[in-house]
Amino acid sequence: MQIIDGNKIAAEIKNEIAEAVTEIKNKGGKTPHLAAMLIGNDGASETYVGHKVKACEQVGFKSTLVRYDASITEKEVLDKVIEINNDPDIDGLIVQLPLPKHISEQKVLETINFKKDVDGFHPVNVGRMVLGLPSFIPATPFGIIELFRRYNIPTEGKNCVILGRSNIVGTPMNLLMSRKAYPGNCTVTICHSKTKNIEEICRNADIIIVAMGIAEYLKADMVKDGAVVIDVGITRVKSDKTKSGWKLLGDVKFDEVAPKCSYITPVPGGVGPMTIVSLLKNTLSSARNEIY
Amino acid sequence: MQIIDGNKIAAEIKNEIAEAVTEIKNKGGKTPHLAAMLIGNDGASETYVGHKVKACEQVGFKSTLVRYDASITEKEVLDKVIEINNDPDIDGLIVQLPLPKHISEQKVLETINFKKDVDGFHPVNVGRMVLGLPSFIPATPFGIIELFRRYNIPTEGKNCVILGRSNIVGTPMNLLMSRKAYPGNCTVTICHSKTKNIEEICRNADIIIVAMGIAEYLKADMVKDGAVVIDVGITRVKSDKTKSGWKLLGDVKFDEVAPKCSYITPVPGGVGPMTIVSLLKNTLSSARNEIY
Repeated sequence: MQIIDGNKIAAEIKNEIAEAVTEIKNKGGKTPHLAAMLIGNDGASETYVGHKVKACEQVGFKSTLVRYDASITEKEVLDKVIEINNDPDIDGLIVQLPLPKHISEQKVLETINFKKDVDGFHPVNVGRMVLGLPSFIPATPFGIIELFRRYNIPTEGKNCVILGRSNIVGTPMNLLMSRKAYPGNCTVTICHSKTKNIEEICRNADIIIVAMGIAEYLKADMVKDGAVVIDVGITRVKSDKTKSGWKLLGDVKFDEVAPKCSYITPVPGGVGPMTIVSLLKNTLSSARNEIY
Repeated sequence: MQIIDGNKIAAEIKNEIAEAVTEIKNKGGKTPHLAAMLIGNDGASETYVGHKVKACEQVGFKSTLVRYDASITEKEVLDKVIEINNDPDIDGLIVQLPLPKHISEQKVLETINFKKDVDGFHPVNVGRMVLGLPSFIPATPFGIIELFRRYNIPTEGKNCVILGRSNIVGTPMNLLMSRKAYPGNCTVTICHSKTKNIEEICRNADIIIVAMGIAEYLKADMVKDGAVVIDVGITRVKSDKTKSGWKLLGDVKFDEVAPKCSYITPVPGGVGPMTIVSLLKNTLSSARNEIY
């Protein structure tokens, strides 16, 4: 059994990106530049955006944080998005979700120029991913794909079960794992709240990707020996064993599942650290005009 | 066992569309208008486009057929697409594939204004379908969905197996059957050339959608009693029992599979007739501004 070390891989990729940035700068090129918009005062959103800005600094990117009070109008947000779309110095734009209720998330996301949509949420990027064309792939699925690659985990002809059908994890993973590529070429089964016999379906899986948001849902008796388990869940629960009074749990009952696996991602330190580096990778690709 | 009568349903839908067109005209509205581009002299393409133009006439649509010799340049094609994009009288544009090799299909399809892309092949429409937003759904998947609806075939919680992962049938069916909707809410397994144990996977399916293009691939011993079987395949084979010397076969060995099914589509007369009416439905939706 091997624990997939997301922290280690993420650090490796950050180093690779930092080297690429140094090379660009040495050649007199423009520094890759990510802009992030943060609207309102949601604590979790502030933390996430803070981590993204810090990651930009670590790899030598320029970053711009655009902050607005929750009272800003939709039109002002859309105008700012258009301004950033037209700013040739900015390679990528992300808008931290959720937005205040009076602002349409869909309208904002669709206003972002898809060539700067490094979150990969714009319909053009989603559609191009489905069609097998170059596109920005959403950060979490991109991070998972990269873990398969870096650990050389075989996927062709494997039965892959995906638990959850969200637009940001389950559905893109369905598309990516079933496409004709590596990682991919799996026989993919996608399960959700209406699925019957999830236990039995999981027991037949060579690869299980769990993205349900239910702490410790996947138990040892649902996993066959030698399976690969990727845990995308993250739930904060109270704990009297930590200083903070909280601990993080994944969707997998790690202690009992891990011994049966060939590979497994822990929570924290598995998929999570890959998410931000995927965003950085997309921004670098944009700066280099590799996608569009 | 019930044979799904695609001809009957297609005729019903054509009547509904014709009534809608009459109503639009009676109210002094603009007649829905489909434009089709045909490049070169491929016999099958001529037949397909001919059927589409004829179907337009049957329901009272205006149609425009733009024909070019195979020697036309890519730029001339793109210029014509842009001209049609800008023509307010035209609601839908389809470009019959395949195109001559010197013309990029992808470039042509992406140049079509997605608001007139009634074939549903543009990345924006594909992406919006994935995201659950209103979009033009490609004709064959849309036709299959409509057959489920018209026959009130239950789908929620069913195991649905899709054989084939093409961009025009298998992959959209994967997305449509797994989404939170009716038809949909299935546990979907998508199989392809790299899948192991297809037989066993099929035997566990409540619904099988076959789109492989291999004549009579699905045999009785691969289908469980009471399954729903949708046959998208169509292969022309020589026959000494027909006047023409040819007959059409689906991907299902119909005679032996049908008795085991609760519902099954025949070939011809199942999915095929639904394809053109789906194109008409999309064109009507465009004329009514129902999607965009």
